[in-house]
Amino acid sequence: MVEGEDLVDAGLAAGLEPVDLLVAGEDVEPRLLAEVSVLAHPPRRIAVFRRDDLPALDTLSAPGAGVALWHVGDPGNVGAIVRAADGLGPAFVALSTGCADPTGPKALRASMGSLFRVPLGRFEDAPGHRVALVAHGGEPLHALELDGPVTFVLGAEREGLPESVAAACERRVTIPLEPGAESLNVALSAAVALYELRAR
Amino acid sequence: MVEGEDLVDAGLAAGLEPVDLLVAGEDVEPRLLAEVSVLAHPPRRIAVFRRDDLPALDTLSAPGAGVALWHVGDPGNVGAIVRAADGLGPAFVALSTGCADPTGPKALRASMGSLFRVPLGRFEDAPGHRVALVAHGGEPLHALELDGPVTFVLGAEREGLPESVAAACERRVTIPLEPGAESLNVALSAAVALYELRAR
Repeated sequence: MVEGEDLVDAGLAAGLEPVDLLVAGEDVEPRLLAEVSVLAHPPRRIAVFRRDDLPALDTLSAPGAGVALWHVGDPGNVGAIVRAADGLGPAFVALSTGCADPTGPKALRASMGSLFRVPLGRFEDAPGHRVALVAHGGEPLHALELDGPVTFVLGAEREGLPESVAAACERRVTIPLEPGAESLNVALSAAVALYELRAR
Repeated sequence: MVEGEDLVDAGLAAGLEPVDLLVAGEDVEPRLLAEVSVLAHPPRRIAVFRRDDLPALDTLSAPGAGVALWHVGDPGNVGAIVRAADGLGPAFVALSTGCADPTGPKALRASMGSLFRVPLGRFEDAPGHRVALVAHGGEPLHALELDGPVTFVLGAEREGLPESVAAACERRVTIPLEPGAESLNVALSAAVALYELRAR
């Protein structure tokens, strides 16, 4: 369920066919929209799209960059990463179980309509060279040299990546930080990594 | 008021003297801490520090990079930007009226203790070359060449920078995005700009 004109329009602009489209004052009384809305200010439009109509990660035609998220539970972070994959891509987003649902209301708002453009897939299916983005001890991000598609693998906010998941990656890279600083927010780390790859 | 061992320890490690420090089971009954806590899982420690003891932006000894925020109301974004200024700095953060309080509970948690290390100041006092970071129409970020300290000026999530504020800056830069993508989240934009400056 997609609320608000900007998001609904983004879905329609991406060519998705809504299952339902409600416009306040036309199809439906504004009061009823307000009742089903999760927003503080009820929207003028609500649309229902099919999850299966969203762009899906196809490993044969995947973009050359992507982000694979391991147990990133904060929907705001997941949405911001989808938005970054759109702007700093083209890139896909692959999600493990335990990640926030990218189609949930908060993630969807944070994605600002990018959800309708970014291929989503399962963590296991992320193609290309898997590069673990870790807070400490990896080679510096700017020194990363790889031919071909790259998937940056990122872990949850506090816990980071489990050692077994990091060990299954080809490489480990770290965004060099100031002494004393612990880490960056996971969405900011993803954006910096995609920006660096794109700047090459 | 600072909740949780990690945050309280970050404040103490930064040399701040708490006005009060409550440890569950030592100074206070755990039940009482739970009552004043805003967290779902009550913390074992709560400390109260003085705002005036936090590092303040001193234009004579300011770091060579900084971020000035115009009406960024989301506390999660403000906190993530403070955290980025710590890790991708050293950098200061200057805030206009209308910004979320960086010492509020959500911003403080998002800053992950960086609040105790990053100099904060008023929007008006941000030193150095002022560079407006705009979603469209600026010179590409990677082409920015400036000698001396730089302050990136960023606007609110949806509205961006008012034209008068952007016009008062020396330069306008834009993070080049994929066609069709609208913009990045304000905290991600700040991180990318600080990363680019740091990479020089």
